[in-house]
Amino acid sequence: MEHNYDQESVNLHRKLSGKIEIRSKYPVKNMHDLSLIYTPGVAQVCEEIHADVNKVYDLTIKGNTLAIVTDGSAVLGLGNIGPEAALPVMEGKAVIFKQYADIDAFPLCLRTQKTSEIIHIIKNISPVFGGINLEDIAAPRCFEIEEALQDIGIPVFHDDQHGTAIVVFAGLINAAKVAGKEISELKVVINGAGAAGTAIAKLLLCIGVDKERCQSVREILVCDSKGIISKQRQDIKQNAVKKQLADITNTRNMHGGLTDAVKEADVFIGVSVGNVLTREMVRSMNERPIIFALANPVPEITPESAYDAGAFIVATGRSDYPNQVNNALIFPGIFRGAFDARAKTISKAMQLAAAFALAECSGELKNERILPEVLEEHVAKHVASAVRQACLMNNEKQREEHIV
Amino acid sequence: MEHNYDQESVNLHRKLSGKIEIRSKYPVKNMHDLSLIYTPGVAQVCEEIHADVNKVYDLTIKGNTLAIVTDGSAVLGLGNIGPEAALPVMEGKAVIFKQYADIDAFPLCLRTQKTSEIIHIIKNISPVFGGINLEDIAAPRCFEIEEALQDIGIPVFHDDQHGTAIVVFAGLINAAKVAGKEISELKVVINGAGAAGTAIAKLLLCIGVDKERCQSVREILVCDSKGIISKQRQDIKQNAVKKQLADITNTRNMHGGLTDAVKEADVFIGVSVGNVLTREMVRSMNERPIIFALANPVPEITPESAYDAGAFIVATGRSDYPNQVNNALIFPGIFRGAFDARAKTISKAMQLAAAFALAECSGELKNERILPEVLEEHVAKHVASAVRQACLMNNEKQREEHIV
Repeated sequence: MEHNYDQESVNLHRKLSGKIEIRSKYPVKNMHDLSLIYTPGVAQVCEEIHADVNKVYDLTIKGNTLAIVTDGSAVLGLGNIGPEAALPVMEGKAVIFKQYADIDAFPLCLRTQKTSEIIHIIKNISPVFGGINLEDIAAPRCFEIEEALQDIGIPVFHDDQHGTAIVVFAGLINAAKVAGKEISELKVVINGAGAAGTAIAKLLLCIGVDKERCQSVREILVCDSKGIISKQRQDIKQNAVKKQLADITNTRNMHGGLTDAVKEADVFIGVSVGNVLTREMVRSMNERPIIFALANPVPEITPESAYDAGAFIVATGRSDYPNQVNNALIFPGIFRGAFDARAKTISKAMQLAAAFALAECSGELKNERILPEVLEEHVAKHVASAVRQACLMNNEKQREEHIV
Repeated sequence: MEHNYDQESVNLHRKLSGKIEIRSKYPVKNMHDLSLIYTPGVAQVCEEIHADVNKVYDLTIKGNTLAIVTDGSAVLGLGNIGPEAALPVMEGKAVIFKQYADIDAFPLCLRTQKTSEIIHIIKNISPVFGGINLEDIAAPRCFEIEEALQDIGIPVFHDDQHGTAIVVFAGLINAAKVAGKEISELKVVINGAGAAGTAIAKLLLCIGVDKERCQSVREILVCDSKGIISKQRQDIKQNAVKKQLADITNTRNMHGGLTDAVKEADVFIGVSVGNVLTREMVRSMNERPIIFALANPVPEITPESAYDAGAFIVATGRSDYPNQVNNALIFPGIFRGAFDARAKTISKAMQLAAAFALAECSGELKNERILPEVLEEHVAKHVASAVRQACLMNNEKQREEHIV
C-alpha cells in the first residue's frame, strides 16, 4: 500500500496555519513609498484604469492572478465535504501554481452549491482575476457552470474535466507509440461517465476541434454503473450529458456491461471506483493492452494484477507507481500559457496543444515512462509555450478571416 | 501644494504589475513534500475539518486572511470608478495590512453595486476568510451591507466609517488634553453626513457602548450640504441614516447653515469638500478651537489659514502636514486584534479601546503631535493588543452573565 501521510500532513498543516500567504512586492520604507503605492499617488493609477479598463492588466495583479473556485461538493475521493474542508486542497493547488508557473492563485470556497448562485458569484468577482480554475465541483453542475461562464472575458476552466483529459490524452499518445499502435486505430473503453470520463471521451474524439488538426481514436465505449452508454438506454433520457455521450460514442450501438465493453479493446481508462477491472477482463482485451486505472487511492486494478494478466502498459493516479496521471502535470502550464497570451477562453485547440506538448516532455519512452513526473520543472514551461502559441495562432487566424 | 506623485506612481505600478503576490509558505522540494501538502496527505486534513469545522482556523489560511471588498462606487475622492479602477487602492491596503499587522489581505472588487447581491456574495465567500474589510462603498449602501452581515460569524467592518471615526476620536482625545478641555464639555460640529461623518457622530456620542465605559462629548451638530441636520428637516424624512442623526445629535434643535453651527463650537470636523470653512467661521468658534479639516486632497481650510484665524490645533488628511488623520493608523491593529481574539464582530467596545490605545501611542503631546505618524510600527501592535483585550473581556463578561 501507499505510504500513509495522514498524521505527518495534519501536523505540518497545524504548524503552517495555511500553506500560502499574501506578500507585498514593494515593502514600504518611508512616507514617499507609502505615497506611491497608496494615497495620494495611487489615485492617478486608478484614473488611468478608469479611462481604459484594459490597463488593469498592466497596472494591477489581475493579469497574473487566478481564482481557484470550489463549492466543496466533490473533493478528492471524499465527496461533498463543504467549503471549509475543501480549503486545504485548494491551498495545495495554489502552492503548485506558484511553484511551477509563477501564478498567484487564491482559493475561494463557496458556501453555496446552487448552480445559478455560483455562476453569479464568479461573474461578480471576475474583475480581480485573469482566470478561474473550477475545482472539485460535482457533475452535472460543473458542466453547467463552466458553459455559462465562457463569455465573461477571462478563461474559466474546470480542471477535473479537462486537466485530467489532457494528461490522459498525452499519456495515450505515448502509450500507443510504445505499443506500436496508431491513435486512429484504437478502440477505447472509458469506465466512469462523470466530469473526467466525459471530458476524456470528447477530447479523444476531437469534439470541437478542426478535424484536420486532430486525429481521433477509432471508437469509444463509455460505461457507467449501469453498463455501456447507448442511445437505447431509457434511464439516461433525462441526463443531457449522458445523452450527448450516447450520440458521440458507441457507433456500433453495443450494449452490455463492462465485461462486454472491454472485449478486444486496446485501451481501458478507469475514472470510477477501485477493483472493477478483473484479470479476466484484461485477458479479453486486444493484444498489448493499455490500462489507465485512475481511481484513487484504490485503482480499478492494481498494476501488479494488470501486468500479471498481460497488460502492456499500466498508468495510475498514484505517486508510488510509474506512469502517474496527475493533473499537476498540466494545470500550471495551461494557465501560464493562457495568461501569457491574455486568452479569453481555453479553447479545445489550446487543450490539444497542451496534450501534445506534455507528451513531448517524457523524453525516451518506455512502458514505465509514458509521462514525465510531476516535479519535472521543464514541463510547465513547455506546455505554457505551446498553449500560448495555439492561442495566438487562433487569434491570428480569426483576424485573417475577419479581413477576408 | 502636496508633492505630485502621479507619474512616478504610474511608472512604479507598471513595473510591478501588481503590488501583492501569493507565496507558498512551504516550497515543494520532492514527492514527499508534494504528498504532504497535496494528495494523498491533504485528504486527512480535509477530513479533520469536515469532522470539526472550527479546525479550519488551525489548519488553513482562514484565521489570518482578510477580504478587502469594494464595489468601486466611492473610491478615494474619485467617486464611482468601478471595480477594476478601484483595485490599485485595495492592493495598496493589502500591502499595509501585511507590513503593519502581518495579515494576509486579498482584494475583491465586485462587478455589482446592488446591495442585496453584495451581501449575498460576501456571505458565500466567507468560508475562506477570518474577516471582511468593506472599503470605498457609497453611502447609504455601505451601512445596509455592514448591518446585514453582522451575524455571519466573522467580523465585517467598514473602514471608511469606523476606521476614520476611531482615528478622529483618538486625535480628539489628545487635542482636548493639549487644549486643556474636557471631552465631556466639547461642542462639536461635523460637516458631512456620509459614511465617515455618521460614524464619527455615533462614536463621539458613545452610541452602542455601556455609558460607564465611555465619556461622550457634550453636543454634536452635523451639517450636510443643506445645513444643520434637525428633526424639523422635511428633506431627510426618507433618509433613515440622517433621521437617526437628527435623533441623536442637535439636542437644542438648532437650524441654519454651517456658519450658524460653528459659532462657539470647540471642534470642527470636516469630512466633506474643500474650502468650506472660512477664517471668519474659525474666529466665531470657542477659544482654542480644534480643527480637523479632513477633505482630500483639498481640506475644508488650509492649516495656514486656520492658524492665521486663531485655530489652536489643526489636523488634516494629508501626509505633508503634521497631525495626519489616516485610517492606516488603525485598520491594521483593529483586524490584528480581532484575528488574535478570533472575534466574531468588531464591537463598539473594541473600537473605543482602539481609539484610546491609538491616543496613547502619540508620546509627548503638543499642538502638532496629537497622533503618531503612519509609519510608526509600534502603533498597530499596541492597538491590536487593546482590541484583543476588549474582545476577550467582553466574551468573559458574557460568559459570567450566562452563568449567573
